[in-house]
Amino acid sequence: MSTSPTTNDREEGLAFQPKFDASGLVTCVATDAATGDVLMVAHMNDEALRKTIESGDAWYFSRSRNALWRKGETSGQTQRVVEMRMDCDQDAVWIRVEQQGAACHTGRRSCFYRAVTTGDGVTRLAFVDADRLFDPAVVYRT
Amino acid sequence: MSTSPTTNDREEGLAFQPKFDASGLVTCVATDAATGDVLMVAHMNDEALRKTIESGDAWYFSRSRNALWRKGETSGQTQRVVEMRMDCDQDAVWIRVEQQGAACHTGRRSCFYRAVTTGDGVTRLAFVDADRLFDPAVVYRT
Repeated sequence: MSTSPTTNDREEGLAFQPKFDASGLVTCVATDAATGDVLMVAHMNDEALRKTIESGDAWYFSRSRNALWRKGETSGQTQRVVEMRMDCDQDAVWIRVEQQGAACHTGRRSCFYRAVTTGDGVTRLAFVDADRLFDPAVVYRT
Repeated sequence: MSTSPTTNDREEGLAFQPKFDASGLVTCVATDAATGDVLMVAHMNDEALRKTIESGDAWYFSRSRNALWRKGETSGQTQRVVEMRMDCDQDAVWIRVEQQGAACHTGRRSCFYRAVTTGDGVTRLAFVDADRLFDPAVVYRT
């Protein structure tokens, strides 16, 4: 595995050089600063990254809605960023957050409310920590 | 926000229905089962998912090498999966792992060895937990 100077700089340097994909996005993992649980996986574009850094609140870019959004702007379930880290090749961001209420649009604390299980050669899911903290039909007025 | 029956089933059902992107991949976040730290963000295709579930060792799909790989097959730095969870829309996987040595190809425990800092309006990175557990030049024989 040879490493070009550019790759090496991005991996070993201290310059903030996010590596956006073809859609202009990096992947962002948000974990609960208190428990270490993964709350959600989402995406940030350049503007979402900048707004997150400047404001200390998590901003994302929705691929389905093709729009920038401040986490919690509709639901009130905001995320205060305690720490932000970049990964080796700077195409992924990890934020440790103080989550207000629930991170998931289904009303659960985390989007990861189902574990993968196997039995008799069949792979299924099982609910884990799946209590709803809010009713999405009320919060999002569906 | 209206929810189609298909979406609802994927979000509220217990069927294992990974939602692969156009490249046939889901995003996978691996965290340290002991500390909760995010170790790496990578991708899995259908075969990597199945092999991970069947073997209990983490398998990934490398986009840069266009190849399936068992984590640690070259470096010896394997990941034993303690728990696997799917997110709400089943396009992201969270695995809690027992990491043998270092997860990052640079030799660090985690790929997230730099924090984002700001000062005087400039955003930069700072090393955090950046000690190397192995020398990549030796392990990968570059």
